[in-house]
Amino acid sequence: VAKRLEKFKTTIFTQMSSLAIKHGAINLGQGFPNFDGPDFVKEAAIQAIRDGKNQYARGCGVPDLNLAVAERFKKDTGLVVDPEREVTVTSGCTEAIAATMLSLVNPGDEVVVFAPFYDSYEATLSMAGAVTKSITLRPPTFSAPIDELRSLISKSTRAILLNTPHNPTGKMFTRDELDAIASLCIEHDVLVFSDEVYDKLAFELDHISIASLPGMYERTVTLNSLGKTFSLTGWKIGWAIAPPHLTWGVRQAHSFLTFATATPLQHAAVAALRAPDSYFEELRRDYLAKKSILVEWLKSVGFKVFPSSGTYFVVVDHTPFGQENDVAFCEYLIKEVGVVAIPTSVFYLNPEEGKNLVRFTFCKDEQTLRSAVERMKEKL
Amino acid sequence: VAKRLEKFKTTIFTQMSSLAIKHGAINLGQGFPNFDGPDFVKEAAIQAIRDGKNQYARGCGVPDLNLAVAERFKKDTGLVVDPEREVTVTSGCTEAIAATMLSLVNPGDEVVVFAPFYDSYEATLSMAGAVTKSITLRPPTFSAPIDELRSLISKSTRAILLNTPHNPTGKMFTRDELDAIASLCIEHDVLVFSDEVYDKLAFELDHISIASLPGMYERTVTLNSLGKTFSLTGWKIGWAIAPPHLTWGVRQAHSFLTFATATPLQHAAVAALRAPDSYFEELRRDYLAKKSILVEWLKSVGFKVFPSSGTYFVVVDHTPFGQENDVAFCEYLIKEVGVVAIPTSVFYLNPEEGKNLVRFTFCKDEQTLRSAVERMKEKL
Ligand SMILES: CSCCC(=O)C(=O)O
Ligand SMILES: CSCCC(=O)C(=O)O
Repeated sequence: VAKRLEKFKTTIFTQMSSLAIKHGAINLGQGFPNFDGPDFVKEAAIQAIRDGKNQYARGCGVPDLNLAVAERFKKDTGLVVDPEREVTVTSGCTEAIAATMLSLVNPGDEVVVFAPFYDSYEATLSMAGAVTKSITLRPPTFSAPIDELRSLISKSTRAILLNTPHNPTGKMFTRDELDAIASLCIEHDVLVFSDEVYDKLAFELDHISIASLPGMYERTVTLNSLGKTFSLTGWKIGWAIAPPHLTWGVRQAHSFLTFATATPLQHAAVAALRAPDSYFEELRRDYLAKKSILVEWLKSVGFKVFPSSGTYFVVVDHTPFGQENDVAFCEYLIKEVGVVAIPTSVFYLNPEEGKNLVRFTFCKDEQTLRSAVERMKEKL
Repeated sequence: VAKRLEKFKTTIFTQMSSLAIKHGAINLGQGFPNFDGPDFVKEAAIQAIRDGKNQYARGCGVPDLNLAVAERFKKDTGLVVDPEREVTVTSGCTEAIAATMLSLVNPGDEVVVFAPFYDSYEATLSMAGAVTKSITLRPPTFSAPIDELRSLISKSTRAILLNTPHNPTGKMFTRDELDAIASLCIEHDVLVFSDEVYDKLAFELDHISIASLPGMYERTVTLNSLGKTFSLTGWKIGWAIAPPHLTWGVRQAHSFLTFATATPLQHAAVAALRAPDSYFEELRRDYLAKKSILVEWLKSVGFKVFPSSGTYFVVVDHTPFGQENDVAFCEYLIKEVGVVAIPTSVFYLNPEEGKNLVRFTFCKDEQTLRSAVERMKEKL
């Protein structure tokens, strides 16, 4: 195996989901709903298949989807972007991330990430030959240590990788934090790659796209996807929004990574993104209810639960239950209790930093959440 | 834009297909059928969507598809592979190629390709930091110059990239050529990445997977996809078959490039790959008829048509029509005649080598082929 991938293991999501199946455990690990996406989106996909929308899409996206992405972005952020020159449709946000790294980062460039971070960030930075620098968001507030960020930025800093709402912690970057990050980026001519796939799952604060701050659009790649917002994680429709000079790079990498994205599902994504406001409101309300329930129940099990402002994840401190670290706790939880959580140490450059923390998802129906908690109450 | 992508232009397929739309030209350029895939496959996708197969698939593929790929490979090649450890489902063969390069090739490694070659080969090799060495298949026979290959192999040679049936020429590597390549690979401990997406469109010879030659399986990554065989190029379902030590790398790269592939379309792919033999026979017969028609007609227009043994492409010499080179000819053809072909010079390290050759596809209904030829007869 090539050196760029040597240090990486099978992704934790794959490991945990396959253990879940093997042990018949309830999966509160990998972030996919156990309920289905909305019928109107599924029907749009079926219609597209029937209508013969089954050949190669345009590489950068079917025109209607580029337009629908631009319209949605305008609604969400007020920014007007050119669907033809500033939107690239990809095979999930994961591909958008890979395409961004491989096209906009050179070997030796430094990219700053906030730990804990989604594992593909470090792996794709390694593919790009970049140096990953990390800044840790620390419990209980996970607030962004701006002074640390300032002292980490150097002449070699190419970009800051932002993720808000933040997986796994549920932290949302505040307006003040984003302002501070933005002014550092402008001062030091640094790009921002902003992964906002949980933007519609914002509970405690309004989601802010850093691209919408003054002077930021021209230096930001905003990454998003259909999966979380429409409970269709398996469709793998994502996109990158960026000014033309950055989009050009993203499209180049995309055209050689996958060339194009599943055509009929792109057509369905158009229908999805044009959903009425009520769809998004209901989604948020449903998830807020699930969150409240799970947080309550996890507390009643005896976890220390850290506040989550967004995403469909909560992070807890597992140390009351006496396991050595997060990995040991999660193994115990799967094998002895029958519940899957995600250990967080894999999301830090220094795994020690995550050893007390594990992540649960609440993107499951209430009965599943209840059963998981009952198992924990009984056996932990 | 990062250096690794600096030299690449917008892919020729995108350029030509968008010119086709702009000029209302008949598109015999990019290789996608203008007829639809089979109903039983489309219905299987619709059923999967209805059945709620809409969340993340397992990263390496839904188990049934891994199995169906292994079964099909056994039918086609006689090789028995472990679906769980030797098959990786990807977002099209393009992703399988990228994942292979990024996981199995280190910076400075040399990889040999046969020119003309599909443009993603060179781009993904550049992403991997590899040195692309090329050997030219020369008209009229496009036979493989084995002596040149031998003299090109060095201590730094990591792999040979094979593509049979070969895009754009339609050449199929003969048993003798494959034997010679195989013994060079074994002698020099070189891998083979074998792109076989046109394997079911083999007209003049039987398709041979190099993995099936003695001693070759352990050093071969066989790449294939659903798109061409089932006239569903827009579904972007591909796969890589390789021994476990190579599969491990491919899966690592895949999990960080896209993580997983569209779930409902994977379920439909299971149905597709289990199609009765008659499906494949009929496909081949239909395409053979189209090929004969187009070849005949292109000759009647005045082209020198080179023999194509497989794929849905034929390459012709355009020089009777007096344009300076392939790009000029294709521009003239679009703007003045209203037909799109693909210039081939972009598929060589040295563009000069392709300047007399352009590619036409016959993956279109007969009426479309006829109209294109009528336009050429009238206006060329
Ligand atoms: C491929 S897993 C993607 C991210 C996610 O859903 C998770 O963090 O669980
Ligand atoms: C993405 S275009 C893929 C290959 C093909 O169909 C072509 O060569 O035209």
